[in-house]
Order: sequence, then structure tokens, then C-alpha cells
Amino acid sequence: MVAFQKPTLSEIEKAHQRISRYTHVTPVLTSKTINEITGADVYFKCENFQRIGAFKMRGASNAILSLHPDERTNGVATHSSGNHAQAVALAAKLTGIRAYIVMPKGSSKVKKEAVQDYGAEIILCENTLASREETLKNVVKKTGARFIHPYDDYAVITGQATAAKELIENTPNLDTIIAPVGGGGLLSGTALSAHYLQPGIKVFGAEPKNVDDAFQSFKAGKIIPVGATPTIADGLKTSLGERNFDIISKMVTDIFTVSEQEIVDAMRLVWERVKIIIEPSSAVPLAVLINQKDFFSGKKVGIIISGGNVDLEKLPFSLKIINSSLEGG
Amino acid sequence: MVAFQKPTLSEIEKAHQRISRYTHVTPVLTSKTINEITGADVYFKCENFQRIGAFKMRGASNAILSLHPDERTNGVATHSSGNHAQAVALAAKLTGIRAYIVMPKGSSKVKKEAVQDYGAEIILCENTLASREETLKNVVKKTGARFIHPYDDYAVITGQATAAKELIENTPNLDTIIAPVGGGGLLSGTALSAHYLQPGIKVFGAEPKNVDDAFQSFKAGKIIPVGATPTIADGLKTSLGERNFDIISKMVTDIFTVSEQEIVDAMRLVWERVKIIIEPSSAVPLAVLINQKDFFSGKKVGIIISGGNVDLEKLPFSLKIINSSLEGG
Repeated sequence: MVAFQKPTLSEIEKAHQRISRYTHVTPVLTSKTINEITGADVYFKCENFQRIGAFKMRGASNAILSLHPDERTNGVATHSSGNHAQAVALAAKLTGIRAYIVMPKGSSKVKKEAVQDYGAEIILCENTLASREETLKNVVKKTGARFIHPYDDYAVITGQATAAKELIENTPNLDTIIAPVGGGGLLSGTALSAHYLQPGIKVFGAEPKNVDDAFQSFKAGKIIPVGATPTIADGLKTSLGERNFDIISKMVTDIFTVSEQEIVDAMRLVWERVKIIIEPSSAVPLAVLINQKDFFSGKKVGIIISGGNVDLEKLPFSLKIINSSLEGG
Repeated sequence: MVAFQKPTLSEIEKAHQRISRYTHVTPVLTSKTINEITGADVYFKCENFQRIGAFKMRGASNAILSLHPDERTNGVATHSSGNHAQAVALAAKLTGIRAYIVMPKGSSKVKKEAVQDYGAEIILCENTLASREETLKNVVKKTGARFIHPYDDYAVITGQATAAKELIENTPNLDTIIAPVGGGGLLSGTALSAHYLQPGIKVFGAEPKNVDDAFQSFKAGKIIPVGATPTIADGLKTSLGERNFDIISKMVTDIFTVSEQEIVDAMRLVWERVKIIIEPSSAVPLAVLINQKDFFSGKKVGIIISGGNVDLEKLPFSLKIINSSLEGG
């Protein structure tokens, strides 16, 4: 039997050191109201205050800075409609190399502009995963750019692990950490940091019911790809990566799922009471905490707020109906 | 000639001590993007993270805690549709006394519920200042409650002064502080703290053009009441109080005004780039900083973010047209 391979503590520490000039040490916030509502002691690790507005800056920076100079001569490339696109674009700019970002035609204007503002070249593709991958392949072939995977990559995973590392180092005696799970980069990194830095902490994944492939995969013991159901937590639509699943299946305690309405309600609660802008994906862990109130009651719980990039012209608060239509979909 | 009367440093220090168990020491945030856009070094004093979501908690707490126990036996009363209502309600609750809040019928459901949640009694009145004052007078007569004025009160002013005190103590060598001005409680308190704690700091008021009574009064050297023009910065609609004008006219360097669109744009910038929820009134100082870019360029500028209480179902971002209609009004 081949031993379980995983990044080491030393690799996470080196990643943290490496990315420190590209990233912020983000604050940890608390809220009396949230503690009263949940019955737990909650610590929000605010990656919405991270550069580009999301934890993705950590993984992308580490992946790019970990490349040998020869490997990055021709720049880097990725496909993403979201935060990973901006993270690769900014990390490439700071490193002084070119970035090619394959984005679906349907990506919002705001997101395309943000990527362009960082000086990256955008290559538009159709709104399917097949088109994204095909287009990326062509870009890599043509330019010689190095592909930076959004999550299924150990340098990305150790980069994302640094968020939980900071949280644990700044918040003594946490019992629990809850992180959202999409491709699994953040959750696998979180589990690694907890394992090395404070092994008693239980790590949980939080996922929308509409895209519960991580939940299904975790229960089945093998990767089960996600369906095409829509979710407001658009950062969590992707299926688990192999390296991510490998770590998550061995080091995460459990994965909980929540409804679209629970996600919107938790997001609204944070906006109204904590007064910070978080994106829907970031509200999923708090939605889990509220849904599983008895389970987490009395615990000292860290929650990774993954990001704060939202389109202010398309907010869900005045459209509660959006959720029933999504859930019926 | 009667000497200019104003609260002393010792009174501000005592207020700070007095309210410390009712209020948070709020964080000071910075943003690379905002610094790039403004060409200044900007420090946001985040009173949106204050209890009840606004600096008003400081003044209301100090006013209530400064009362002799005999003076508060019958509770406290005020009229307000906004943050002062919640502040008086919560401070009264924490002190264990009754609060009577006169609110216009048109107040939002969210605001009425927040006041009720703190256990205060709401007395509804018509949507005019005359009705508010008349109703309050009757409430005070009937209950014997003590009126807590929203701004024209030295205990309130020294309470509000503690926000700038914390900002100055935590941010060495500020050149400038900009605070929004409505009734003038925050601006007069800010000017006092700057005067005592770091006399070199220049203090500026920031006001919507649509309700520029403070600007007009400052220029004229006497109080000129505000008109009935609407503004999105609804916390700044009131006219300057006498005690506030007295301090502001002597200790504030200047007052600048901005348009409704400039306020919305600045608010949006903070939501999108700083990732915190601020109310329109809080965006007025940043709007001034952007509008007066050359004037403030290169300066180390503190901005008081006065609060973060917004109705998420009525945001201005998808309705740019709202402003042209307001400005035409």
C-alpha cells in the first residue's frame, strides 16, 4: 500500500514566508450578535480583506513564486471566471511575468475589467468546462505559459493553508474550523494546517446542497462529479480535485450542506450585523453553523470567510424568490 | 465678551472611561486602492463596527451615564428615526432604565424592530419635525423621562469626541481628519479631540450639497437652518445645533460639500474595495477627499466612518437614476 502523500508543515511554512510580500495577514473579527444567535464563540478569518478580495491570492502567489524562473519565462495561464483569475493576474503582475486568463463569455464585466486592470490577457471561451479546458490547452500550446490550476495543485493547497495557519496562530484554543468547499483547495489546506498546528481541532467542510459533490464524495469514499444545478454560491460549483479529495477524505471530520435560502440568510446576517461584505460562498460555513446549532453549541469555532467579491448590482436581498427558483431548478 | 465655552480634555477623558463598558474600541482600516485613487494616506476609523452599528452609541452612553441616578429614575426619551434611537435604546437597556423613542410613522420596519429589540417603547408621530418635538414634549411630561438630545448636548459631544480620540491615539502624525456633519455632534467632538490631543491636525466637515446648512452657517458665521431637500445621506439631514455650531465655527478649518452621485460613488468604492458596509452618510468624507484630491494629496488623512446601518433591500447601486431625481428635487 502506498503511503498517503501530503504537503509537510515545512512546505506550508515556506509558502507563508514566500507569499508574505504579495499578501496581507488578514484580521480575525468577532460579533456578539453572531455568538448569541449561534450559541458558539465564532472567529471570522476575513479573507475578504485579502488582496484581490479573496484567499485565492495565497495559492496563486505560492504557485507562481514556487516556479523555477525558467518555468515562468513564458508566463502563466489559467481558466477561471472568478477570484482565481484575478489572483493569477495580480500575482503574475507582481512577479513581472505575463498572464493569460481564459474566461467564459458570460463572465461579468466587473470581473473581466478587474483581470484586465492587472495587465493580464483575457481569452474568451464558451460557457462550458469543455470549452474552457480546450481553449486553455491551445493557449498553453501557443504561448508556452505554465498552467496554474485553481485547486488541484500542492503549491496552491499549501498557499491556501496559510489562511488557517494565521487563524490558528492568532486564535488560541479553537475547537473547530469550518471552511467552504468547492474544488477543495481551501478545505484541504485548512485541514493540513489544523493537523500540523493544533491536531485537536476538528475541520468541517460547508457546501451548498445544490452542488453537494464534496458531501457525496466524502460519504462514498471516491470522487463523484458535481451536477449542473445552479447555486448562488458560485465559487463552490466546481468538483473536488484529486489531491484535494485525498487530503479531505483523510483529514476532514465531516461535510455539511445547506439550502440556498440558508446561504442568503447567513450572508445577510453578516452584512447586517458584522458590517463586512462577504460573497455568498463565504456565507456557507455560517449557514452550516446555524443549521447545526446544537452540534456546534458551546464550541470555539473558526470560520474562513473566503472572499468578498460580489456584484453590487445583483444582490439577493430584495429577491428572496431567487432561491425558490434556484432550488426548484 | 463672554469667553467661548467648550468641554475640556478632562471631560472627554472621563467620557471615554465612562462609556468603555458600553462601547467597542473600533478598528482603523487602510486600503492600498483608496490610497492610490486619492493620492493620500487614508485611515478609516470604523464606527460602523461600533455597537448598534454607529458612533451614536458613544454620545448616548455618555449622556445617560452622566445623569445622576435621580435624574434617570423615570427613564430617558428622544426623537429619532435613525442611529440615535437605537443608541439611546441600547444604552438605556444596559443601564437598566426605560427608554421612550419618538419615531416618525415613515421610519423603516428594520429600524423600528431594532429599537424594540432593545426593549424601548416606541411612540409614533407624523413625519415632521414639529410633530416629533410636540410628541416628545408630551412623552416627557407624561413619563418624567429625561430628554437625550441627539447632538446639541455637551455630554453627547464629549461622547462622540472619543471616536477621534481613539483614532488620533492609534494613528500617529495625522495631518487631517474629515468627519461628516449633520447636527454637528460628531464634527464638534472630533474638533475638540484634535484640538486637545494633536493641535496641528486640521479638521474638516463633509456635507451633502443637498443639505448644506453647515457649510452655509460656517460661511455666514451664524446658524442657517437646512431646507427640505432630500439626500441619500439621511443621517445628515438635520440642522446644526447651537453648541455644535459654536465649537465648529471656532475649531473646524473648513466644510466641503459633495453631490449625491459623488456620495454614492464613494460608498460603492468602499463597499467594493474596502469590503465593509458603510451607510451613505459615512461616504461623504471620502467623497470630499476625492472631490478635493489636489487639496488633500500627500496628506495623512483620518476619516470617521460614522456608521453601517443600511437597508439592504434599498441600495442605490443599481439605481444610478435615483441621484438625478434627488438632485433635481
